[in-house]
Amino acid sequence: MAMVRPRITEYIKIASKRCNGRHFSSSSALRSNASATLPIARLLDHGPKNSSNVAVNGYVRSVRNQKRRSFVAIGDGSTLESLQALLSPEQAQSLSTGTAVRLTGEWKESPNPQAQSHELHVSKVDVLGVSDAAKYPMQKKYQSLEYLRTMPHLRTRIPFNTTLLRLRSDCISEITSFLSQEGFTQTHTPIITSSDCEGAGEVFHVASPHKGPVSETDDGTFFRSTKYLTVSSQLHLEALAQSVGNTWTLSPTFRAEKSDTKRHLSEFYMLELEMSFVEELSSVMDVVEKLVQRVTKPLLSSRVGKEILSSRALDGHDDPDAITSETIRHRWERILADRWPRITYTEAINMLTESTADFEHKPEWGAGLSIEHEQYIANTLDSPVFVTHYPSSIKPFYMLASTKDSSPGETVDCFDLLLPNAGELVGGSMREHRLESLISSMQSHGMLPSGPVESLTDDQLGALKWYIDLRRWGSVPHGGFGLGFDRLLGYLAGVPNIREINTFPRWVGRCEC
Amino acid sequence: MAMVRPRITEYIKIASKRCNGRHFSSSSALRSNASATLPIARLLDHGPKNSSNVAVNGYVRSVRNQKRRSFVAIGDGSTLESLQALLSPEQAQSLSTGTAVRLTGEWKESPNPQAQSHELHVSKVDVLGVSDAAKYPMQKKYQSLEYLRTMPHLRTRIPFNTTLLRLRSDCISEITSFLSQEGFTQTHTPIITSSDCEGAGEVFHVASPHKGPVSETDDGTFFRSTKYLTVSSQLHLEALAQSVGNTWTLSPTFRAEKSDTKRHLSEFYMLELEMSFVEELSSVMDVVEKLVQRVTKPLLSSRVGKEILSSRALDGHDDPDAITSETIRHRWERILADRWPRITYTEAINMLTESTADFEHKPEWGAGLSIEHEQYIANTLDSPVFVTHYPSSIKPFYMLASTKDSSPGETVDCFDLLLPNAGELVGGSMREHRLESLISSMQSHGMLPSGPVESLTDDQLGALKWYIDLRRWGSVPHGGFGLGFDRLLGYLAGVPNIREINTFPRWVGRCEC
Repeated sequence: MAMVRPRITEYIKIASKRCNGRHFSSSSALRSNASATLPIARLLDHGPKNSSNVAVNGYVRSVRNQKRRSFVAIGDGSTLESLQALLSPEQAQSLSTGTAVRLTGEWKESPNPQAQSHELHVSKVDVLGVSDAAKYPMQKKYQSLEYLRTMPHLRTRIPFNTTLLRLRSDCISEITSFLSQEGFTQTHTPIITSSDCEGAGEVFHVASPHKGPVSETDDGTFFRSTKYLTVSSQLHLEALAQSVGNTWTLSPTFRAEKSDTKRHLSEFYMLELEMSFVEELSSVMDVVEKLVQRVTKPLLSSRVGKEILSSRALDGHDDPDAITSETIRHRWERILADRWPRITYTEAINMLTESTADFEHKPEWGAGLSIEHEQYIANTLDSPVFVTHYPSSIKPFYMLASTKDSSPGETVDCFDLLLPNAGELVGGSMREHRLESLISSMQSHGMLPSGPVESLTDDQLGALKWYIDLRRWGSVPHGGFGLGFDRLLGYLAGVPNIREINTFPRWVGRCEC
Repeated sequence: MAMVRPRITEYIKIASKRCNGRHFSSSSALRSNASATLPIARLLDHGPKNSSNVAVNGYVRSVRNQKRRSFVAIGDGSTLESLQALLSPEQAQSLSTGTAVRLTGEWKESPNPQAQSHELHVSKVDVLGVSDAAKYPMQKKYQSLEYLRTMPHLRTRIPFNTTLLRLRSDCISEITSFLSQEGFTQTHTPIITSSDCEGAGEVFHVASPHKGPVSETDDGTFFRSTKYLTVSSQLHLEALAQSVGNTWTLSPTFRAEKSDTKRHLSEFYMLELEMSFVEELSSVMDVVEKLVQRVTKPLLSSRVGKEILSSRALDGHDDPDAITSETIRHRWERILADRWPRITYTEAINMLTESTADFEHKPEWGAGLSIEHEQYIANTLDSPVFVTHYPSSIKPFYMLASTKDSSPGETVDCFDLLLPNAGELVGGSMREHRLESLISSMQSHGMLPSGPVESLTDDQLGALKWYIDLRRWGSVPHGGFGLGFDRLLGYLAGVPNIREINTFPRWVGRCEC
């Protein structure tokens, strides 16, 4: 033992020295990012510290050759804008669209400052990755959206698609900091779940092909019974809200529905939030309003906001329904207006039946609102609008029966948030927190056999026994909502098809990469 | 049309009025949280604005009856501490452990300020949800962890488990704000993926039981071929890093491995990060170091940090390996030390072979490090330690071959971050960014038939064709890492079993709720 000690100590010395040793440069990645090379967005905004010896990493967007010099536009994903670089025709020879380069040179005022205030006069070109221009799929202009969807791993290179990625990132940051300030606890709810009966349509099954002999802990299903991909985090969030108070999650969510529309995917992100000790539906709607306003406000001045407004006619966005920058600005302004209208379902139905609009589905009390109805209401009010107190017969079992609503039939304390030209963004409700009432609601939704609570066996209570349990010991009035995160991003960015918002979209028959 | 207009206008009026109308209270949930009732954490820290008419929502943790008065401890998940309330024995009669209440009264200095500076002298008790004490499963003290694992929907009510939930939330916030400041774009990578061959072990399959006739777009598999739950976001992140620059995600990740250990789950959260235009492995390790330090630092002064240190002998945490508060504080201090040791795999093997420790697996160049080896190294150096440059034969196909390492065999530019008494937390590497080298690495890993790139058909390239594509047009040097988020939380909190950290843990044979 006495012999070994010194050797180990030596390793500790080696290890400590190694921090600044031969294998490892002492410069931090974060520091070197800030000093050696700057993202193009920062360079364009603030210029370099020293105008000589400026290095830029990026990808060639275009090369324009003149007799004596070549103009090369470089992008790095940090902005929609390109950096203009001046090269000799010899330097530019090996460059074509898509080539990855490091350019080093002098940062000089541009003779044409309308286009760009400065440009890089390049002294050194390092080609980091070549690009065979003839075969580069992202090179052609005006590719169809459908063509681009076949290659999600490459289409994010289109400058506006990097704007969409940065919009997503900014929105997550903003929501995280807002809800943290407001005392909400962010949690991670499970993806693989035991229940397929939350009333949200068809579900994906999860399986692990069996290998080896069946044993006591392994009957071949991995989990000993069929499991599913979550259709909503709500039920699990309710458990957490009873433990830690107001809580939320931004979680992948799945629907195995074979719908092939602009607004539906098989896999999408949903922001779900539950509030405990809350008795008024309006309290839940207030949070929705503030949250959506909070992510919208920065767009009025942020780089991402400016890029969205300036990008209306860009490559790769040839959608016939493309939305003008005026429309987008109007959307943002209406979101930021003081309070959004709130009408009841019954009022909404009256509004629809009294309208002269030519609806494909006749509006009728007791039936759901179709997308044309939703859009008519929000378009007419020209604002995000909460429609509340829907008939209980068309809503899931967990919603609280209304006591204050004066509608002609039975209703629940719930709301949908509808957006002009878009439809539903958020669905929320007060939850049935009383044991007996929850059981009878599940019975009337055909999820449980009839009879009093005590008479039901564990087998009958089934996969939602744990959810019912939450009402047994110290249940409190509570409510919450689910917000389609990809839909929100699409609305804010003016991109109507969710397949362009979701980076690797999955829907029936389609799962690229 | 002229007849209808006024009616619609009327609805707009109704809708606008309704904002402050009868159905909806005008008080915001956020505002009402701040004024009407305060979370117990805030009340204990800062006291109420007015000491009379203070209302508190929470759950009864204990009731102690004396002749003339009853002491009731209330918790609401915002802190480990209880609020002490004084009631008359009559008022306390309907209360038992687990009951949800709203208590209103006067905030008065306590006669015993060592325990708590103030207490609530209750004038009004509102029972919001009763609790049958005799049947409440969370009531007994010293329940085994295994017992609690059978009811994840209730065990989060244990005060220390709310600390763990708040730790998770704080860490997510801190990471989100840190990486946003550093210019990293947060993204959402897909959960359902096309490839099962990333070299990360067994995978779950995703299926949608077929209903209705087989059609052109629907052969019964939903996606037209077998799909899987992701085992890593890395490959998709690499695509995004080439588009938008440095990027990261905190994403659910799945392994269908039948391991039944403290450190493995079938579903867990992984923080994955990719940096583009990076040439040194040390740059990637620097980010890991700064990131982990950033989430650790607040613990020295935050409520969650104090709660972790003060919670060592709490109910529901009877783990025989329970870790003392001194150990935890030491962990934090070592994490916050200036630079962590970095040694090569070859040095690590030498260190192990020269040690007199009695290893179950003999350390040998060319074999992986087992958990006992990892712990020996990190324990000896008494610090998080990066072990770098492992043999390429035991690492996945996508890692970059080392050129500067002087080891006796072929190595790759990679690292594992090892923690004392815990083992691996992070794995990272530079990625093979050159097309030809990637292809030959895939060939030597048995993933592709031999032959030059051009000779391989799309069918042969298979499900990773898109990943190979990334090397065709402007590929750049890049690297990244994956960090086991649940493991990090467990290490910081001194909870050695990941099943207590993950709220709804799933492993072989087990998927409650």
